[in-house]
Amino acid sequence: MTPTPRTTPSRLAKRAHFDEATIYSILDEALFCTVSTVIDGQPFAIPTAFVRYDDALYIHGSVGSHFVRTIEGGAPVCITVMLADALVVAKSAFHHSVNYRSVVVFGAATKVEDYQQKVEVLKWFTEKIVPDSWGYLRPITESEVRKTTVLAFPLHEASAKVRTGMPNDDEEDQALPIWSGLIPLLGGRGAAIADNLSQNIPLPNHLQ
Amino acid sequence: MTPTPRTTPSRLAKRAHFDEATIYSILDEALFCTVSTVIDGQPFAIPTAFVRYDDALYIHGSVGSHFVRTIEGGAPVCITVMLADALVVAKSAFHHSVNYRSVVVFGAATKVEDYQQKVEVLKWFTEKIVPDSWGYLRPITESEVRKTTVLAFPLHEASAKVRTGMPNDDEEDQALPIWSGLIPLLGGRGAAIADNLSQNIPLPNHLQ
Repeated sequence: MTPTPRTTPSRLAKRAHFDEATIYSILDEALFCTVSTVIDGQPFAIPTAFVRYDDALYIHGSVGSHFVRTIEGGAPVCITVMLADALVVAKSAFHHSVNYRSVVVFGAATKVEDYQQKVEVLKWFTEKIVPDSWGYLRPITESEVRKTTVLAFPLHEASAKVRTGMPNDDEEDQALPIWSGLIPLLGGRGAAIADNLSQNIPLPNHLQ
Repeated sequence: MTPTPRTTPSRLAKRAHFDEATIYSILDEALFCTVSTVIDGQPFAIPTAFVRYDDALYIHGSVGSHFVRTIEGGAPVCITVMLADALVVAKSAFHHSVNYRSVVVFGAATKVEDYQQKVEVLKWFTEKIVPDSWGYLRPITESEVRKTTVLAFPLHEASAKVRTGMPNDDEEDQALPIWSGLIPLLGGRGAAIADNLSQNIPLPNHLQ
């Protein structure tokens, strides 16, 4: 992806990445983003789920949502995603840091109007949460599709920032008998918990 | 906290909370926020670490950061925080959801200029990452404090949104033999990993 003035960081340029492989892998691992826009000159942002497919990022929401209605007309948005991998504990407070992978996307929404395309995007959403689950669920209804707004954001202007590795302590601090290293931040999914309606329903393979 | 038009959700009002106990507990558990602002009419957002103390939220950054310099003058910002607790797997795709706790704060920065106050906020930052570690580290230097901008955001206009519990499937779907329930999203901290400089340094108590 070509860097632009607003995707070029003012600091720590070595952490910036513009290749699709890096950007897409972060987008595909993260479940949530923050979508920011401008309403009457004021910043307004919400965290929400998203899915990437090919060279676009999708969000969805209720047709009744004020925020969705604000951005569906093509208002400029900034979408951020962050995965936090580890706390970086240095010998000085100043060099404490975080190992993270983040993406910033600038763009504007295109509303997905085609019915079949909307259904397809809702399938991608569902299968990002639980892979291979779409065909197992009660089929989506026309009314449910109509109640949902799906917005696409082409990934034309995006960048990633990534920090990895150990603390970068000052040369003169390196011999100090002060512990330095990483504290990993854990993630992942726990074992599924059935609700009252599902106590006697076998857990399907795609949830095991 | 008193709801305002922009902290009052347009949908799912039952998920909204305005009490300090709820808002502060989310801010104290989360390590990262997204700070959004408006630059030349365009939305611009970055993920960053933060700390809450009393009735203010603090971020810090390099004095050389373009973003920090933009907002330190008091430009309006919107700060969002999200903790994702579980994926909510319903019997229909439409009722899939997420158990989450989020906070949205509207405000503007006050730059912390007082030297001792800056040091104090940097201590809160450090001890949010690793409790009780400040006194163990190589002491912060005046130069390090001067290279760091600390911004305070009074928590005057903020709200939380919280979803808990099981899926809310449609009445007519409840007898379907389709598994529904929760998939917990795991968090927490893993065991500390020493860097090369610390292989022979005992892990301090505050990191165990």
